[in-house]
Amino acid sequence: MGDKIRIGIAGYGNVARGVECAIAQNPDMELCAVVTRRDPSSVQVRTEGVKVVAASDVASLVEEIDVMILCGGSATDLPEMGPQYAALFHTIDSFDTHARIPEYFDAMDQAAAKNGHVSILSVGWDPGTFSLNRLYAEAILPDGSHNTFWGKGVSQGHSDAIRRIPGVKNAIQYTIPVERAMEAARSGSRTALTAREKHTRECFVVAEDGADLAGIERTIKEMPNYFSDYDTTVHFISEDELKRNHSKMPHGGFVIRSGKTGDGSQHVIEYSLRLDSNPEFTASILVCYARAAWRLSQRGESGAKTVFDIAPALLSPKSGEQLRKELL
Amino acid sequence: MGDKIRIGIAGYGNVARGVECAIAQNPDMELCAVVTRRDPSSVQVRTEGVKVVAASDVASLVEEIDVMILCGGSATDLPEMGPQYAALFHTIDSFDTHARIPEYFDAMDQAAAKNGHVSILSVGWDPGTFSLNRLYAEAILPDGSHNTFWGKGVSQGHSDAIRRIPGVKNAIQYTIPVERAMEAARSGSRTALTAREKHTRECFVVAEDGADLAGIERTIKEMPNYFSDYDTTVHFISEDELKRNHSKMPHGGFVIRSGKTGDGSQHVIEYSLRLDSNPEFTASILVCYARAAWRLSQRGESGAKTVFDIAPALLSPKSGEQLRKELL
Repeated sequence: MGDKIRIGIAGYGNVARGVECAIAQNPDMELCAVVTRRDPSSVQVRTEGVKVVAASDVASLVEEIDVMILCGGSATDLPEMGPQYAALFHTIDSFDTHARIPEYFDAMDQAAAKNGHVSILSVGWDPGTFSLNRLYAEAILPDGSHNTFWGKGVSQGHSDAIRRIPGVKNAIQYTIPVERAMEAARSGSRTALTAREKHTRECFVVAEDGADLAGIERTIKEMPNYFSDYDTTVHFISEDELKRNHSKMPHGGFVIRSGKTGDGSQHVIEYSLRLDSNPEFTASILVCYARAAWRLSQRGESGAKTVFDIAPALLSPKSGEQLRKELL
Repeated sequence: MGDKIRIGIAGYGNVARGVECAIAQNPDMELCAVVTRRDPSSVQVRTEGVKVVAASDVASLVEEIDVMILCGGSATDLPEMGPQYAALFHTIDSFDTHARIPEYFDAMDQAAAKNGHVSILSVGWDPGTFSLNRLYAEAILPDGSHNTFWGKGVSQGHSDAIRRIPGVKNAIQYTIPVERAMEAARSGSRTALTAREKHTRECFVVAEDGADLAGIERTIKEMPNYFSDYDTTVHFISEDELKRNHSKMPHGGFVIRSGKTGDGSQHVIEYSLRLDSNPEFTASILVCYARAAWRLSQRGESGAKTVFDIAPALLSPKSGEQLRKELL
């Protein structure tokens, strides 16, 4: 097959633009269309010659797209658009509300299976490559425990929560793993670490003129779920400084499993990421799973899948022979 | 299926004893037989009630074993016993002569496919989970480069090479990764690192009485392939000290990929292992791939496979539903 895999992107935010860049790094794929809920004429796609189609006309793309990468949010977009698109296309998405994955999986499975499509959901790094490492490490060391640490990186959800406080103009929140807790995880200690022991939170806040800074700081630190269980630091800075020093989206983290074998031999398996751009890295993962979805569909498979169901070789453009020779 | 997967082990060295321990940690499996080229009555198996069978009678086990784990060496054992056993059983092995994998794969594929068996070869950590991480990371970051570092750990091959030098009674060789080279790999520098830059070698040697120590040291340091391309340190110690401080088989290492996306965002993916016992850890990986081989055979698949061909979910005793809920 000399033909390229024809990719569509639904949505055109940060992750979607990352997908566009990742496709340019993978010569066996091409970006053919961007689907938007905005007025298509208002969307400027970076790659030349790419069609912009209104979401209401998405069905018109059925013959032109091999795999549709859904770049909507997990809170409200994907639960609705996911099953609807899975009925029309093979799909990839990065649904990341961990607690609702089982329910979303079922909805996607029904829509995809009924229409002979493959839908790989919850693709990215967590859920995604972090999940893979939790699974591999647990299967290898069943007598052990694992810990996931996130950061240092920007949490969009926590930044948004701060931005909703009255008197706050803008804010960025960093999640920071605690080195001492990571050392405990590596040492094989199995005492469960609390939220406070594992991560700290650092907030950079731009307040409105004359706002009650002490009140904002207290509101942040006492916010349940988001901050009250953590040691939180709040810095008030200018809009200029926020733009200059905090406009990137770095992230990363660690999955550490320690476990025992035999008569007490101790082993540590550690996987870590250090990312300049969370959306671009996530997008790069989505793109190689699009290749896998297309290959599975060519074998006649259908239904919802996760990263757990995908044989690693399906992600690479290389042949099995090449992989065994070069990477095994 | 309430039935346990019935495992056989061919050979009874360090890795085989590790397999025995790992099976005890996996309640869905049981060890049923050990196959040996020695006199079966001379082999004391730790687990009670396990049959010991002479290699010449291995065909008698065909109805009693679901998956045979081959614990022979890669140099001479596996090239011969691999295809022979793959004709009789589903097999797992840790064939690790990287350069000869393509040829071994073909021989195993022929024997396994012709007899309807699944043979997963080159399972362990390198080749094995290190290979998986090279593949995943390269697929995600095609515009990048990866480096594998080994150690600190005992290299059996290098230890054996020293033991063959006249005047040497015993020896242990540690491979040690160079921190500066690891930092260069993490920094995204793509200048290829030389063997000397990546690892040093440290040797603990017990010499025979009156041996020419300076001569032994020179012979080690100048040995082509094994030592001449590395900075090597040689320590002469007593047999007692060797037994006391160097009788364990620790190992480990790092797979580091750095790459770029978009307009120059830099990312680092790192996988590392720190192992008290190389053979026990390798054995733990063999055992979860035995589960995968059995499941694939139950679906009617056959032929040779590597870790690249195995969907991660097949390794875990948990159901797809459980995995999505607990680990995704």
